Amino acid sequence: MTVHTPWLEDLVDALTRVTGPGPVSLHAPEFTGNEWTYLKDCLDSTFVSSVGQYVDQFEAELAKLTGAKYAVAVVNGTAALHVALELSGVQRNDEVLVPTLTFVATANAVKYCGATPHFVDCETSTLGMDVERLRMHLKRISEIRDGQCVNKQTGQVIRAIVPMHTFGHPSDLEGLVKLTHDFKLVLIEDAAEALGSVYQGTHVGVFGRFGVLSFNGNKTITTGGGGALLTNDERLAKRAKHLTTTAKRAHPWEYFHDEVGYNYRMPNINAALGCAQLEQLPKMLQEKRNLYERYKKSVGKLTGVTLLKEPEGCRSNYWLQTLMLNGVHQDQLTAALEFTNAKGLMTRPAWNLLHTLPSYTHAPRMDLYCAQDLVQRMFNIPSSAALGRVL
Amino acid sequence: MTVHTPWLEDLVDALTRVTGPGPVSLHAPEFTGNEWTYLKDCLDSTFVSSVGQYVDQFEAELAKLTGAKYAVAVVNGTAALHVALELSGVQRNDEVLVPTLTFVATANAVKYCGATPHFVDCETSTLGMDVERLRMHLKRISEIRDGQCVNKQTGQVIRAIVPMHTFGHPSDLEGLVKLTHDFKLVLIEDAAEALGSVYQGTHVGVFGRFGVLSFNGNKTITTGGGGALLTNDERLAKRAKHLTTTAKRAHPWEYFHDEVGYNYRMPNINAALGCAQLEQLPKMLQEKRNLYERYKKSVGKLTGVTLLKEPEGCRSNYWLQTLMLNGVHQDQLTAALEFTNAKGLMTRPAWNLLHTLPSYTHAPRMDLYCAQDLVQRMFNIPSSAALGRVL
Repeated sequence: MTVHTPWLEDLVDALTRVTGPGPVSLHAPEFTGNEWTYLKDCLDSTFVSSVGQYVDQFEAELAKLTGAKYAVAVVNGTAALHVALELSGVQRNDEVLVPTLTFVATANAVKYCGATPHFVDCETSTLGMDVERLRMHLKRISEIRDGQCVNKQTGQVIRAIVPMHTFGHPSDLEGLVKLTHDFKLVLIEDAAEALGSVYQGTHVGVFGRFGVLSFNGNKTITTGGGGALLTNDERLAKRAKHLTTTAKRAHPWEYFHDEVGYNYRMPNINAALGCAQLEQLPKMLQEKRNLYERYKKSVGKLTGVTLLKEPEGCRSNYWLQTLMLNGVHQDQLTAALEFTNAKGLMTRPAWNLLHTLPSYTHAPRMDLYCAQDLVQRMFNIPSSAALGRVL
Repeated sequence: MTVHTPWLEDLVDALTRVTGPGPVSLHAPEFTGNEWTYLKDCLDSTFVSSVGQYVDQFEAELAKLTGAKYAVAVVNGTAALHVALELSGVQRNDEVLVPTLTFVATANAVKYCGATPHFVDCETSTLGMDVERLRMHLKRISEIRDGQCVNKQTGQVIRAIVPMHTFGHPSDLEGLVKLTHDFKLVLIEDAAEALGSVYQGTHVGVFGRFGVLSFNGNKTITTGGGGALLTNDERLAKRAKHLTTTAKRAHPWEYFHDEVGYNYRMPNINAALGCAQLEQLPKMLQEKRNLYERYKKSVGKLTGVTLLKEPEGCRSNYWLQTLMLNGVHQDQLTAALEFTNAKGLMTRPAWNLLHTLPSYTHAPRMDLYCAQDLVQRMFNIPSSAALGRVL
């Protein structure tokens, strides 16, 4: 079926020089440390569920790693986003600025609050929000009334902004912090993909009111399913813990729940896996950097294909390595996906842009031309840490 | 501090004759089967997250055990309730009939849909909904308009009813099925506590549109955190699977989500634990029956204390054993809780009645006198399967 396409054969050659022969997955987890030991300890102690020392330990280690004062472990990144939005005061009929280039959970969490995502374009160097163009957009469509940013076109309050650090590359956080100040927005960082990523010397996830992490099976480290909230605010940390644990007040035996809470607890058995995985993180981050260097050397010689580099001043976790097609190959994404996958190299396009999904076609937005261009040209290539290991 | 109370000393003697010396927990999980083997298999195969054979296997085994045509594993019982309500058409400003005597999740899940719980009283033999008094209440306050049950006092549609099988004892399902037919209500069974419980020869959870199970750490079997939906309707089962897995349409690489879904997937590692636990269930159910018999023999001689028996025509899983104080001791619940816990026997009252919680004080309700009486007199005593083991 596939016509003879020398450039695709060259691409597969370049990739397999790094990955070895296929099949190669996009991102495989690895359990080569204390995973067995900690899981067995959970079984032996019978503490597998919502009470247990691994949850506390995992939270403490996440706080230490990221520099956040507090971390609250939850059942997944979507739950963390939901609670971060609720505790940022997002309510029914508010709007929340969300990238169109992100996983659907970022927008869904806004919907869970009864609010509407307002889609923001990205820029090419970080794949994150284009802060300067967003600023122009907000100047045009919003005004500050009573200390709140109001969308003049919809009459709704734009309450918060949720930049996402795409594939682990930090967004323009300096610009975002300034923007949120100028437009009275609450900043929540969707760092689901960015554990280990550093912006100008500071770990991402701690620049706003909340940061959100994910430990899904496809992430740099995994707890099976899991997520966490990061915050520097003690009151918000306590509120997050309370709200995610059914809002039950502490008491030796009474079941008094003082508000409508959620069952978003991370089970101890999943936290145990997380503790063991965190021990491996420094090694994996190094390996993922090595993998970038290997790909650069190998793919760098090809024309019409560019490997995405971490943004200036940042240290990316390189969660997923990304190729951009340009020049003569810029229209050939489908061919590239089909050819590489047929050769056993698992490659994936970015997400369908959220403003194109049925649930969000009527949501407010700025001009999204950059994301529209990029998703037609970019795709992720095999990115497991093991591929960067020096053997 | 505690005054000399011979009846409480007699009670503790009677309990410890069964449990042995304390400390004894209310309900401890046990991992004496293939739990470690299956967890280790997850790690070795690297399938710990949302894709993996144990999720499929767990669902198939739950369906087989309960007789439901389909089971969909999710992240916990609360999530299962939420999705069951949404797929039953419960929407903003609806009302849902919910017992006041239940864990807070039953009502919270209604709130997540933007609807309001409408509280129902229980009766003494099952601790479940009092169907006859509920029927009188509905006759008085509701009318059928266009095939829907409308609360004449609030003007809102009463869309569904969620009976909960308290401590594993099946509610009056025959009466409930007839009531839902007469009043045009969708029946969702909250069987979170009732895995293994049988009503007139049929496992609970399959009498209505959905049944909901929980595998929290305090339940008869545990997955750390987990739950499931049961249904006999193929279309609803597919809808439930779709909605709980981010509503992503199947495609080799596209991320097309056709509605606002949820990240409610049960991770494979938790399902692996569940598969091993399910193998132990028949043995545990027998041990929990033995424990009832032991307690009956031991506590049966006391006056003013009655052990709760499974309802007529039912086979209860005896998840939690329950004592009722009556006669001279009916006002002494706090003393009983304090004394037994001080002696190392973990005992617990029932939940604070939901209509008394701040979130629900203004919710509609029927007269709730039976539940109000019972919660002042009943408490759960140590109930682990291991306590019923013949050694």
